[in-house]
Amino acid sequence: MKVIDLRSDTVTKPTTKMREVMAYAEVGDDVYGEDPTINKLEQKAAELVGKEAALFVASGTMGNLLAVMTHTQPGNEIILGKNSHIFQYEVGGLAKLAGVQARTLDDSEGIFSTKDLLSAIRGEDIHYPESGLVCLENTHNKAGGVAIPKNKIDEISKTAHQHNIPVHLDGARIFNAVTELEEQVIDLVAEVDSVMFCLSKGLAAPVGSILAGTQEFIDKARKNRKMLGGGMRQAGILAAAALVAIEEMIDRLALDHDLAKKLAEGIDSKVVTLESVNSNFVILKVNEQLYDTKGLITELDRKGIKVSQFGSDLLRVVTHKDISKEDIDRVIDIFSEL
Amino acid sequence: MKVIDLRSDTVTKPTTKMREVMAYAEVGDDVYGEDPTINKLEQKAAELVGKEAALFVASGTMGNLLAVMTHTQPGNEIILGKNSHIFQYEVGGLAKLAGVQARTLDDSEGIFSTKDLLSAIRGEDIHYPESGLVCLENTHNKAGGVAIPKNKIDEISKTAHQHNIPVHLDGARIFNAVTELEEQVIDLVAEVDSVMFCLSKGLAAPVGSILAGTQEFIDKARKNRKMLGGGMRQAGILAAAALVAIEEMIDRLALDHDLAKKLAEGIDSKVVTLESVNSNFVILKVNEQLYDTKGLITELDRKGIKVSQFGSDLLRVVTHKDISKEDIDRVIDIFSEL
Amino acid sequence: MKVIDLRSDTVTKPTTKMREVMAYAEVGDDVYGEDPTINKLEQKAAELVGKEAALFVASGTMGNLLAVMTHTQPGNEIILGKNSHIFQYEVGGLAKLAGVQARTLDDSEGIFSTKDLLSAIRGEDIHYPESGLVCLENTHNKAGGVAIPKNKIDEISKTAHQHNIPVHLDGARIFNAVTELEEQVIDLVAEVDSVMFCLSKGLAAPVGSILAGTQEFIDKARKNRKMLGGGMRQAGILAAAALVAIEEMIDRLALDHDLAKKLAEGIDSKVVTLESVNSNFVILKVNEQLYDTKGLITELDRKGIKVSQFGSDLLRVVTHKDISKEDIDRVIDIFSEL
Amino acid sequence: MKVIDLRSDTVTKPTTKMREVMAYAEVGDDVYGEDPTINKLEQKAAELVGKEAALFVASGTMGNLLAVMTHTQPGNEIILGKNSHIFQYEVGGLAKLAGVQARTLDDSEGIFSTKDLLSAIRGEDIHYPESGLVCLENTHNKAGGVAIPKNKIDEISKTAHQHNIPVHLDGARIFNAVTELEEQVIDLVAEVDSVMFCLSKGLAAPVGSILAGTQEFIDKARKNRKMLGGGMRQAGILAAAALVAIEEMIDRLALDHDLAKKLAEGIDSKVVTLESVNSNFVILKVNEQLYDTKGLITELDRKGIKVSQFGSDLLRVVTHKDISKEDIDRVIDIFSEL
Repeated sequence: MKVIDLRSDTVTKPTTKMREVMAYAEVGDDVYGEDPTINKLEQKAAELVGKEAALFVASGTMGNLLAVMTHTQPGNEIILGKNSHIFQYEVGGLAKLAGVQARTLDDSEGIFSTKDLLSAIRGEDIHYPESGLVCLENTHNKAGGVAIPKNKIDEISKTAHQHNIPVHLDGARIFNAVTELEEQVIDLVAEVDSVMFCLSKGLAAPVGSILAGTQEFIDKARKNRKMLGGGMRQAGILAAAALVAIEEMIDRLALDHDLAKKLAEGIDSKVVTLESVNSNFVILKVNEQLYDTKGLITELDRKGIKVSQFGSDLLRVVTHKDISKEDIDRVIDIFSEL
Repeated sequence: MKVIDLRSDTVTKPTTKMREVMAYAEVGDDVYGEDPTINKLEQKAAELVGKEAALFVASGTMGNLLAVMTHTQPGNEIILGKNSHIFQYEVGGLAKLAGVQARTLDDSEGIFSTKDLLSAIRGEDIHYPESGLVCLENTHNKAGGVAIPKNKIDEISKTAHQHNIPVHLDGARIFNAVTELEEQVIDLVAEVDSVMFCLSKGLAAPVGSILAGTQEFIDKARKNRKMLGGGMRQAGILAAAALVAIEEMIDRLALDHDLAKKLAEGIDSKVVTLESVNSNFVILKVNEQLYDTKGLITELDRKGIKVSQFGSDLLRVVTHKDISKEDIDRVIDIFSEL
Repeated sequence: MKVIDLRSDTVTKPTTKMREVMAYAEVGDDVYGEDPTINKLEQKAAELVGKEAALFVASGTMGNLLAVMTHTQPGNEIILGKNSHIFQYEVGGLAKLAGVQARTLDDSEGIFSTKDLLSAIRGEDIHYPESGLVCLENTHNKAGGVAIPKNKIDEISKTAHQHNIPVHLDGARIFNAVTELEEQVIDLVAEVDSVMFCLSKGLAAPVGSILAGTQEFIDKARKNRKMLGGGMRQAGILAAAALVAIEEMIDRLALDHDLAKKLAEGIDSKVVTLESVNSNFVILKVNEQLYDTKGLITELDRKGIKVSQFGSDLLRVVTHKDISKEDIDRVIDIFSEL
Repeated sequence: MKVIDLRSDTVTKPTTKMREVMAYAEVGDDVYGEDPTINKLEQKAAELVGKEAALFVASGTMGNLLAVMTHTQPGNEIILGKNSHIFQYEVGGLAKLAGVQARTLDDSEGIFSTKDLLSAIRGEDIHYPESGLVCLENTHNKAGGVAIPKNKIDEISKTAHQHNIPVHLDGARIFNAVTELEEQVIDLVAEVDSVMFCLSKGLAAPVGSILAGTQEFIDKARKNRKMLGGGMRQAGILAAAALVAIEEMIDRLALDHDLAKKLAEGIDSKVVTLESVNSNFVILKVNEQLYDTKGLITELDRKGIKVSQFGSDLLRVVTHKDISKEDIDRVIDIFSEL
């Protein structure tokens, strides 16, 4: 029985093409700046998102941490959504490693309001930490994969900039947002000062993310990456796959979104109801009178379907490159049979 | 013209008795543990709040910071009110110095709900920081000086303890809470693991606060205090005044509360309306059609009355030892004349 | 039997004059910048050492920590003596709180060489932390209270400045250095960017130290002091005594140095030999064939004389305001009798 | 003209076999613990060095940082060589990220003495940070690639353990030490609590290092790795090459050492003299009357030979997998011709 793994798009495996290019990648010592494939990737990635420079990092968490460390000084306060990945799922690194205090705003809908932002920005006072950074997330994971439209990103960014506060975008799934919104990525991130996006997840590269911003910012982030131990030697192996990811894998995200919609429309089950469908995320509410949520996850697992718990009585189902139309049909069938 | 300073009870000056005892205090080197007056104060303070041990510290901020540093490990998450003094007014020290992430809950009414607390406590997951501490505040400054009743403190504490999380109480004004609630302080703090209270503010000592908890906790806090540079030499001078504060100044807080009520009842003005009165805090809402808030503060200052801004269109008026019944009459008159 | 406490000059008790002025000191809320006695002290202290501005702090450790925090960024490297108080006796606060790496040089003679400094300054390299601060100490405690002459302080300072690195001087006992060297304090600290000196120790104020530097530096240090919890309210009580310390107590340090020399010359004992005498420090080497060092300290304590251990077989004897000529005679006698 | 790159063994490129296995590696999501190739690598690596568990990390710096973070608490002091890689070349991460103070000892010969260690271990005192970790390095880079014999590692380790202090070994080049000393790696690291070794460098894997220790230690390190952003997804690609590194590349290090000796013996030049040869490192002293060191490096570079500067007038020449006997002959010739 093939396991249909819908827990996250992080489980995607590299494509045949990726494996092929990794086998032949030209490499060098990237700590010396001499890995030609890394250099090519960083240049292409910067161009892709319309920033001056880019840095290959081991993970989205590392990219976000570097953004916080590089934009701020320890003792600053950063403003971000209370459901943001940076606050919720990055092990408290912002406090322990970057030394910043998190001021969290309501982002249940995926982004906080400008009004809330304004009330969170600190003035000058001996009791106050300095407001050092605003962080956004697109698509927003905890809000169910919702894509944040350009005008909202821009409005928050402009407000932050009026107070001389830079903006970082956690764009782990920015290309899902691009796909959902039918925007150009350059436009969607035009107003933010830095953006991180993942090469793994929907784009299927085995390892890595990109942090992009100004040349000066990336130079500093590169040194901070060295401090974290994120400087890798012949990383061109990974960069080769990453180049395939950004060259060939972005357009196909639309298929994942179609499958998510197909699943959302096809779910006809007593045990779950559709809570939301956005980009490649389907959120299902468990009828806890029939099944407790953990029990349902175990039952699905037994039938070869893996999904994630997403809050107390919700399931998260994520489509991705390794999920086919047939897989979704089978998932629909299995839910019907429960 | 005598200035009537109602900005905060932090402006209280030491009493004649305090000055007298400071002049004759027996002192020694407290870094060696040899200051008899400090030793006496720490013992009396511990007994007063019913904890094993106590530590004299330079300020409420230092006491709270030591509590966070001593209860937690860097990388932990602490749970506290989003309006709490620790989060709002302590310069982000919790992140920069203690290395902990702040998870803030709604405490508009002075304390967050047990339900919110439960949803904020982290489980075991590689993405999560560990929940290391719950902080409460009583009376609650930003909620307008409201006293939090024992049953609420106890309920939160018991819930935290069920998850093996200690509880620290920022009791900068715990004796105002005691006065307002007509409780015994020992009862009011019985369920929390540590409590900080200020000897300055309403109790009028010139300098200092107390941190109290178990002997083991205080031993560790004492070393952390040394690291912060809070170890003072012949601190018995300050302890002498502090002993007067806890022996003679607690009972008179009721007078401050009476004056606050008197002021609240007496305010009859077009320019402000009563928002709330709790303990020694009166919160007034400015009729911004007649006066902008900053302008009103300046106008009052010109007439010899100092008050604080408290959010966009609110004034905070705090009664204390150096405010008399006559002063309050004059304040009422001046508001009437505006 | 009067105890003769020669462990350290930190044990000095406030003078009658200090107690008197404390009893009558004019005070205000220093967090608001409104304590007139603090303001006067900070102005006088700045003038005394020839710097733009000064800040009253709770201890020498706090002053040094603030200097490190304010001159550097976390992640910097600071260069200091391996025997310096900051490195040896300040609980590792430089790493945990200021986030800097300590690069230690040989200061057995009280100050490291310019050659060693030059070899410790980092160049530009992705593997290197930035050299952010040089710290000196005068008099140097672990080197036996030795006073560092102006030309050596100046040479190190100029070298550091040529590399754009600021210099902080831990002058806990700078007035002992001034006395020993017969220099003006303004000259002795002219080339350093910041200086900390203690009002307790030889100057006998009960509590506090001064950090002095440029106005901009002190403004930042003041905010950092608030973060540490070092902002005190009616601190004018302590400032009043501190003003007496700087006005009346500096000149009398010569007496302490004379007593140290007297003791050094008078020691005629089989159990100890003179190791060194500098400023108000006498270092004695224990003849461990007759007494083990800890045993000798206990024996002296039984006879009413307290001294410190200072390395494996050394005793530190420190003269100060509360030690008289008669006390020294008695100490000499007791050593002779052993 | 083929460039002969002798700057470091970090420049080694993956072998054909490594590229092949990377192309076919079985992978999964390692954040979920589901990458079979990573799991196999971590098990084999632990067995190889005789520890309970192992963790794949992005670099030697990350492995060392995790060791420091996991063995210690912020505020601890760690004891290590003043020339150690952790202190010299890891960007001060130990202070900024791990919050520990570095106490450095003389390791000019590759390891410090037990006597120095004993004098560096802190006792119990309110002024002292706690001694939390001892770090060693084998082979020792700055000491010229010298291999530290088992008895010295063991003696330091036993002394540290007598004081309840754990020991971490930076074994970036531990297999060079093993080769040089003709020891079994399990014996050589038997007494240390954790060891990091690199899969890149002489072993030629493109990316990665291993941290090994007890299961409990590795579990904690894994979470710390997540905080640093070092959790990678389909990292099995890299693990596949790493498995080749540990299975096939260790034995051939002897060839690199032979080439280093050959070079050392063959150097017959007016411009340089042999300083030392150890493991795969040759250190040459520049005759600065003929060439300044930087100028000589540039001149060699022009002739197709890359070497590193290693202190003011020293060159470091490192042999490795991508250097042949013919390359060494050419290097000898070129030095002769200078």
